[in-house]
Amino acid sequence: MNKNAAFEIAEYERRLKKTRAAMAKAGLDALFITDPSNQAWLTGYDGWSFYVHQGVILTMEGEPIWWGRYMDMMGGRRTCWMSHDNIIGYGDHFIQSTEVHPMQDLAALLTRLGFEGARIGVEMENYYYSAKAHAVLSAELPNAKLSDATALVNWQRLIKSAPEIAFIQKAARISEKVMRTAIERAEVGVRKNDLVADIMHAGITGVDGDWGDYPAIVPLTPSGLDATAAHLTWNGAPMRADEATFFELSGCYRRYHAPLCRTVYLGTPSDEMRRVEAAQLEGIEAGLWAARAGNRTCDIANAFMDVMARHGIERSGRMGYPIGLSYPPDWGERTASIRSEDETVLETGMVFHFMPALWMDSWGLETTETILIQEDGAAKPLCDIDRKLFVKH
Amino acid sequence: MNKNAAFEIAEYERRLKKTRAAMAKAGLDALFITDPSNQAWLTGYDGWSFYVHQGVILTMEGEPIWWGRYMDMMGGRRTCWMSHDNIIGYGDHFIQSTEVHPMQDLAALLTRLGFEGARIGVEMENYYYSAKAHAVLSAELPNAKLSDATALVNWQRLIKSAPEIAFIQKAARISEKVMRTAIERAEVGVRKNDLVADIMHAGITGVDGDWGDYPAIVPLTPSGLDATAAHLTWNGAPMRADEATFFELSGCYRRYHAPLCRTVYLGTPSDEMRRVEAAQLEGIEAGLWAARAGNRTCDIANAFMDVMARHGIERSGRMGYPIGLSYPPDWGERTASIRSEDETVLETGMVFHFMPALWMDSWGLETTETILIQEDGAAKPLCDIDRKLFVKH
Repeated sequence: MNKNAAFEIAEYERRLKKTRAAMAKAGLDALFITDPSNQAWLTGYDGWSFYVHQGVILTMEGEPIWWGRYMDMMGGRRTCWMSHDNIIGYGDHFIQSTEVHPMQDLAALLTRLGFEGARIGVEMENYYYSAKAHAVLSAELPNAKLSDATALVNWQRLIKSAPEIAFIQKAARISEKVMRTAIERAEVGVRKNDLVADIMHAGITGVDGDWGDYPAIVPLTPSGLDATAAHLTWNGAPMRADEATFFELSGCYRRYHAPLCRTVYLGTPSDEMRRVEAAQLEGIEAGLWAARAGNRTCDIANAFMDVMARHGIERSGRMGYPIGLSYPPDWGERTASIRSEDETVLETGMVFHFMPALWMDSWGLETTETILIQEDGAAKPLCDIDRKLFVKH
Repeated sequence: MNKNAAFEIAEYERRLKKTRAAMAKAGLDALFITDPSNQAWLTGYDGWSFYVHQGVILTMEGEPIWWGRYMDMMGGRRTCWMSHDNIIGYGDHFIQSTEVHPMQDLAALLTRLGFEGARIGVEMENYYYSAKAHAVLSAELPNAKLSDATALVNWQRLIKSAPEIAFIQKAARISEKVMRTAIERAEVGVRKNDLVADIMHAGITGVDGDWGDYPAIVPLTPSGLDATAAHLTWNGAPMRADEATFFELSGCYRRYHAPLCRTVYLGTPSDEMRRVEAAQLEGIEAGLWAARAGNRTCDIANAFMDVMARHGIERSGRMGYPIGLSYPPDWGERTASIRSEDETVLETGMVFHFMPALWMDSWGLETTETILIQEDGAAKPLCDIDRKLFVKH
């Protein structure tokens, strides 16, 4: 086994077994997996090569097959746990060609493997399986039955194993470090990009021997009116007095995340902001209390919203999602959601980014936690940073 | 006009005009654009929200319409140049739902705009237009004629305007800074992640008043055998003596890039590596010489390969691509390629990452340049870093 893969072989075997049970239930002979997080979860593959077509073929027997661009096959050999025979490359002439498409090579490979008439699951709703890829693969395999297996593997990732939780805890130590850096360095006149540079530096140096990987989302650090929007990044403007800045950050340890948000106010926050802060903190406590094994994801959202309603604050929509192993552009796992319409039953070992941010008309307040569902009692926040609006004068 | 948009209105008008001419030629009434780089190029939209469905509707008249998640509409108002009426949000219940899909909202919007039976171009080969999105949009608009407009906007981006070249030159100053940091800090015993932290810090602090943005690809920094693969990132292992490390890096100024690669050897490189270095440098000179207005992209590749062949080094495949404005996961523009099959005619103002890296059996040598095609003479490398294998003892 390749020593570069992140986990022991037993962990990958657990994952294969779980996924195959789901394939059997879905009536699939094979899966073609394009989500880089799912690829890494099953095979260990780790490289910034997802911008070209690549994927993992999983059938009901044997090792998974990693398939990608020839030059990335070399990266597969360095990072996957499987034998080199099961790491397969296609020619460079397929790359961004208007004449040939990598899915032609994949179809030929599936045919050689005897799956030209098989029931094959594909991830229809994924960044890395384009509309064109699906059209070409369908045309090249007229006798196969392609069906939508979006999130089939993602759902298997929902309950984390002990080694995965250990990775997330390492990420949480890094998240604490980056958040402390952000809070300490934020002051009037500091250019936002200089602050972000320090945040990234803190994250990638890591904590003790645990080196930092790149998070799947760059630091989101909007101030003032920009903080009424959810996903602005940064610019070179100096931080100003009497503005709130929220920091949505995550440490990353070997692709595992522990997202965390805190808000910093430079000056004296208004009574209104203080009132909303108090409500938010009370709502988070209620959410953590509801986030226990046997309850449902909607119970967390409803508990938070009940507190908000009591304080006359309107908040609907999504308030969190499972996290763990991830690649850009998203660190969420894209399965359950913490929202009133979602009834996923919480189980021990699930990890969520509980994200009850409040975006108001002229400012935003983000205070969030990465939480672990425990065998008994309320969920455990994995990062240890004071839960409050940080005020600096 | 919104002061946050990166360019003057005249620049956006130029872009709209060019794109509409291409639409007319393709017989399209409307375009739905999902590529975040194309969205930003047309509207200025800038946010890390491309992990949910969003896009730009461009018709033959009026302002483009930015459409996305409600909370990102707020970001659109902060970054797009259009009036707020043309920045439209959909509800949060569409996000990662298994019951409803954002493309249902888009179809309703296109219908309201009178395009339910129109000829609409979509980007079939794009990370952010999934197979599922296409299936839903097609089903919701049975009377529309959806056709593949992949790269239609990208091709309009190939020749850069003067303000765009100015942005790329700012990015090039940042690229020089990050590469100098990498070369200076690399030494035996330095953990790779600590080096990457310094690289990122250098890039994001930027140069003078020009703040650094996040590059569309994280630093690729493999050493030794890992450098036989093209796209590995980093880990926490200390750098070792007698190994080559290549650095594939880019500064980024307001989403514009200037990628640059150099290789550092810690120790005394073998005669073989020196021989390959000399050949590569000679090949790059030949490539630059061939990279002139009126020649074709294949002429650059062939000039390089001719030199390689003369030195008995086998190199085929792709050796570069246009660059400019970009979002993850790729900083290439996904149109022309510098390769022997590609006959794109070079014109003044095109900018390429000329990338004739050599991946050998047990090491890799990356020496590359971001180049500007000039009105007269050979292409101009935009970064000023010695072109050689850097040797440190």
